[in-house]
Amino acid sequence: MKILTEEFLIETKGNCDIIDITVNLRTLLKESKLSQGNCTAFVVGSTAGISTIEYEPGLLKDIPEVLEQIAPTYKKYFHNETWGDGNGHSHVRSFIIKTSLTIPFKNGELLLGTWQQIILIDFDNRPRSRRIVAQFIGE
Amino acid sequence: MKILTEEFLIETKGNCDIIDITVNLRTLLKESKLSQGNCTAFVVGSTAGISTIEYEPGLLKDIPEVLEQIAPTYKKYFHNETWGDGNGHSHVRSFIIKTSLTIPFKNGELLLGTWQQIILIDFDNRPRSRRIVAQFIGE
Amino acid sequence: MKILTEEFLIETKGNCDIIDITVNLRTLLKESKLSQGNCTAFVVGSTAGISTIEYEPGLLKDIPEVLEQIAPTYKKYFHNETWGDGNGHSHVRSFIIKTSLTIPFKNGELLLGTWQQIILIDFDNRPRSRRIVAQFIGE
Repeated sequence: MKILTEEFLIETKGNCDIIDITVNLRTLLKESKLSQGNCTAFVVGSTAGISTIEYEPGLLKDIPEVLEQIAPTYKKYFHNETWGDGNGHSHVRSFIIKTSLTIPFKNGELLLGTWQQIILIDFDNRPRSRRIVAQFIGE
Repeated sequence: MKILTEEFLIETKGNCDIIDITVNLRTLLKESKLSQGNCTAFVVGSTAGISTIEYEPGLLKDIPEVLEQIAPTYKKYFHNETWGDGNGHSHVRSFIIKTSLTIPFKNGELLLGTWQQIILIDFDNRPRSRRIVAQFIGE
Repeated sequence: MKILTEEFLIETKGNCDIIDITVNLRTLLKESKLSQGNCTAFVVGSTAGISTIEYEPGLLKDIPEVLEQIAPTYKKYFHNETWGDGNGHSHVRSFIIKTSLTIPFKNGELLLGTWQQIILIDFDNRPRSRRIVAQFIGE
């Protein structure tokens, strides 16, 4: 059993920019030489999230639309009154989607479906450089 | 420390069918002979989710109703325009609920509450056969 | 590699009371003497959740407001008709936010952002004493 804790940076445009990070995680998994275990993908910060989706252009537009219903950008947020940064909705969305995801792997491969990719979504209202922690535990 | 990566299939009716998979995970945990560690339950695919609920008939009706408000079945989805499979809402719901859950165990028992079960929810708009990965890490 | 499975209690006021449990987890991590690995925080029960937020007073009011839109307290719930405890909304919110979160650590420190805290949120409609499982796997 071995643990490897890696990090990489992803540049985003903010505003629900959704970025496929599967290839980043796959590359690190190959380099780790691990065969069986799991990978925890964690985004540092409180205005982003990690999940899985079928990475296709339609959903990249549908997901921001639904999030706009759940936690609208222009709703009155107490967070914005205090901090003036206008990203109250970004914080609430990150709370809901959460910043961590654990994916099992076996025979050196993440056990994802064919149409299932691991994504970073940046809820902030401006471009950001995001630190992703990719931690592999296995053998 | 040991890792075991198991899989099982669950037949669902789709359309927010919610299935208690606690007994499946408990059985695999017993067979593993592990005493302390955690279990990651992961559903392969991009139109399902894993979470915990009190598994009782009322909530099996309440949860689909709330999801229908969050990501309505008959909203216009760009995903549906491209793919014509009518399950845009299923993809968005899976993105929100997510496909992975990690549950600790000790003394050979999952550390759940009495009224807390681990469930698979199938958001797709048709019956599906779902692959669940159950990965145990522990000693 | 070592596993430690600890527990602690948190008294809440219910009704979307949000409590910062980062210091509890940090203290247990220090005591564990582990340097690298991850911590799974899990709340026992089906009416609470674990996530990360920037722990500041504005968001402590914004998050309950958004949850009230997603799963309103006074909606008709089948759960309430059967059980008469009036906390159908609490169960649905726990299903969405989920009861588990895994956070990586390295050099003995949780890899959180400066403005990112780990929180327990209690969705129940009355004060509760909550059991939090904190499980550390690492070396």
